[in-house]
Amino acid sequence: MSAFVVKGDIFYCKSLSETVSVKDGYVVCIDGRSAGVFEVLPEKFASLSIHDYSGKLVIPGLCDLHIHAPQYSFRGTGMDLELLDWLSRYTFPEEVKYADTDYAYRAYSIFADDMKKSATTRVSVFATVHCEATHILAELLEKSGLYGFIGPVSMDREAPQKLCVPAPEGITELDNWIDENLCYNEHFLPIVTPRFVPCCSDELLRGLAEIRRKYALAVQSHLSENPSEIELVRTLCPYAEFYGDVYHKNELFGVDKKGNSFKTVMAHCVHSTDAEIRLMAENGVFMAHCPASNANLSSGIAPVRKMLENGVKVGLGTDVAGGHSKSVLRAVTDAVQISKLYNCLVDNNAKPLSFSESFYLATKGGGEFFGNVGSFEELYEFDAVVVDDSCYKTVCEQSVAERVEKFAYLSGENINLTAKYVQGNRIM
Amino acid sequence: MSAFVVKGDIFYCKSLSETVSVKDGYVVCIDGRSAGVFEVLPEKFASLSIHDYSGKLVIPGLCDLHIHAPQYSFRGTGMDLELLDWLSRYTFPEEVKYADTDYAYRAYSIFADDMKKSATTRVSVFATVHCEATHILAELLEKSGLYGFIGPVSMDREAPQKLCVPAPEGITELDNWIDENLCYNEHFLPIVTPRFVPCCSDELLRGLAEIRRKYALAVQSHLSENPSEIELVRTLCPYAEFYGDVYHKNELFGVDKKGNSFKTVMAHCVHSTDAEIRLMAENGVFMAHCPASNANLSSGIAPVRKMLENGVKVGLGTDVAGGHSKSVLRAVTDAVQISKLYNCLVDNNAKPLSFSESFYLATKGGGEFFGNVGSFEELYEFDAVVVDDSCYKTVCEQSVAERVEKFAYLSGENINLTAKYVQGNRIM
Repeated sequence: MSAFVVKGDIFYCKSLSETVSVKDGYVVCIDGRSAGVFEVLPEKFASLSIHDYSGKLVIPGLCDLHIHAPQYSFRGTGMDLELLDWLSRYTFPEEVKYADTDYAYRAYSIFADDMKKSATTRVSVFATVHCEATHILAELLEKSGLYGFIGPVSMDREAPQKLCVPAPEGITELDNWIDENLCYNEHFLPIVTPRFVPCCSDELLRGLAEIRRKYALAVQSHLSENPSEIELVRTLCPYAEFYGDVYHKNELFGVDKKGNSFKTVMAHCVHSTDAEIRLMAENGVFMAHCPASNANLSSGIAPVRKMLENGVKVGLGTDVAGGHSKSVLRAVTDAVQISKLYNCLVDNNAKPLSFSESFYLATKGGGEFFGNVGSFEELYEFDAVVVDDSCYKTVCEQSVAERVEKFAYLSGENINLTAKYVQGNRIM
Repeated sequence: MSAFVVKGDIFYCKSLSETVSVKDGYVVCIDGRSAGVFEVLPEKFASLSIHDYSGKLVIPGLCDLHIHAPQYSFRGTGMDLELLDWLSRYTFPEEVKYADTDYAYRAYSIFADDMKKSATTRVSVFATVHCEATHILAELLEKSGLYGFIGPVSMDREAPQKLCVPAPEGITELDNWIDENLCYNEHFLPIVTPRFVPCCSDELLRGLAEIRRKYALAVQSHLSENPSEIELVRTLCPYAEFYGDVYHKNELFGVDKKGNSFKTVMAHCVHSTDAEIRLMAENGVFMAHCPASNANLSSGIAPVRKMLENGVKVGLGTDVAGGHSKSVLRAVTDAVQISKLYNCLVDNNAKPLSFSESFYLATKGGGEFFGNVGSFEELYEFDAVVVDDSCYKTVCEQSVAERVEKFAYLSGENINLTAKYVQGNRIM
């Protein structure tokens, strides 16, 4: 049994509306799970070793529900186009390079190393169509100590030929990749990853649904990001009632035809119709809200409040490189900011997200996709990051909650982590 | 004569549509001014000492047209309210504390030190109503090596009594403060600073116009930030045709009644009417565009493209603490992002700002308020920052322009400056 205590200024969320702050508090970790947060350490834990981070902030590890590892190399550049043009001009040409495993190794080494040093502990990753390169990425992420999901992207149309693998061949490759990956990797599980409907024939989608069923896997994809994309889906899939219905009819949207549930996360949902939102809620499909990407690619602002009010599960995604930053803390504050603009400009009745609501989405909200993750409540997996906010000097007395808010608003891409734990293992 | 050469990867703007990038280039500084940028150092400068920053980015110092020094202490917190409630709940109570000169010294020391370490070289600063505290701030900023404007805030109504100084007394105090300040400070000039119309009686505004004329000073204030504020102005000043007309009729809007021009900068202009925009253009009034603040305080998105098309001079402001970050580079990318949302959500015909356009606003655009500032073109005052972008690793070959864009998107509040020059003096 491994057990220890982390001491510091603790902040976490119990629900969308309930946060807990404990100055000079203790969170106890036993066998990778939280045994609770305490103002005074209970006698029964008195013998445990204390990792003393007094004066520093201790928060749950951040959960990134949507990121593209191969796009990390051009993050922060090339954001002058909307989605479909951006894909063909910047993204697809970069992704083609990952056929070269040397290139992939060099690029993914940077990505995995930077992710390790970030405040993110759980992540759901898109790779490219290349199974070999994705294997390299999976190994690097596995070594990083982070936990999450990883999928080679499946696509067979509407993209450069070098990125399209015809459905039967693509399905076989994926099957083999998953088989192998399940043997080697412990903490990064394969996830079925159709790029998005425009790039996936119905044959491919049906094949992916079979693979999903065979291995009991989760699914990640994109949904209703941009009006041109939605129009394209309407043309390509006239049988569907709305965009999400394509995934649904092909058994990739949270529930199969027999009524069995499986984890699904859809990024963006900026332009989801009421029917789509209803189906997401019914099927338990997660929305990965990616505020920076939605601004950068001129997609708009996703109706997060409406999603929450309709019972959709919501987490945050950085969506590198549509989003420029891998920092989920940045996504937290971006989500707050654009929810205010949504309130001003789109719907005065949609209450803006508060900071703590957005922090909830980035931790316990998205954390649910990974298990009992994203909180310090008892029995939650112990993912924690310890950060030093003393560089943001002030004469004001500030509460722990205010310090966390300030840290989220002011920290940039590279933060100085004091420590980082994933499922009770200290990895930084 | 002081003369030297800075070597590095140089990027700057000549106009809204024209940028210059020179890899491994040279910018020559003679007596505080640029003598030009060169790919190969001309023979006539061969004897000058070279400050070699090879591999690093060399960009013009950033210009912040709008920041509140006393609000720096609570930056990144308390952004759950709109303007008028935010002022009374967070801002005014904090500003009251600056009656205490010890408090002011401690708080302003942090502010001045952090500004020195930032990429900002020129700044137009709001203090509080307290002349003594503002004197302390002026001294600290003067010592920091930055250049700019500083004004104690003038206000006599619609605020806590402790922050209101009746017009005659306020004018006399300001007169004395300016007199003293002009003797002591070389690089931080006094600027007439009516807080905003709701807080300034006509008597006060008229008195400020006289002071302005007496000392030939510039003016800074706020304009058309929030619908409730604009409604309040309509009630308080029924004689005015629109918000900006109050400043105009009181000779604080770029041109006095005799037709003499003076520098004026107005922050926000989110809801400026066509008539207001026309008058700003006619009078040469600068708009300080503060994108982060406008989102944080739910003010909306300012019509920057329209301002530019109508010939209004535009620079960027951080507006700490309505804006959470003192980083003008952050303001550059925020301005790009929200211009895209404006295009999606408000006006499809308003072309979003490109990165280089926004970078122009933050350098040469806003720089004009401070003189011949914000570019490396010949005879421009030599303000430069040198930054190391090697922490943002990538396998991609990136141009100097792409590296600057990436640096702006990814750098946070505290950046590692390699060097910083203001008017040819190295201050970091």
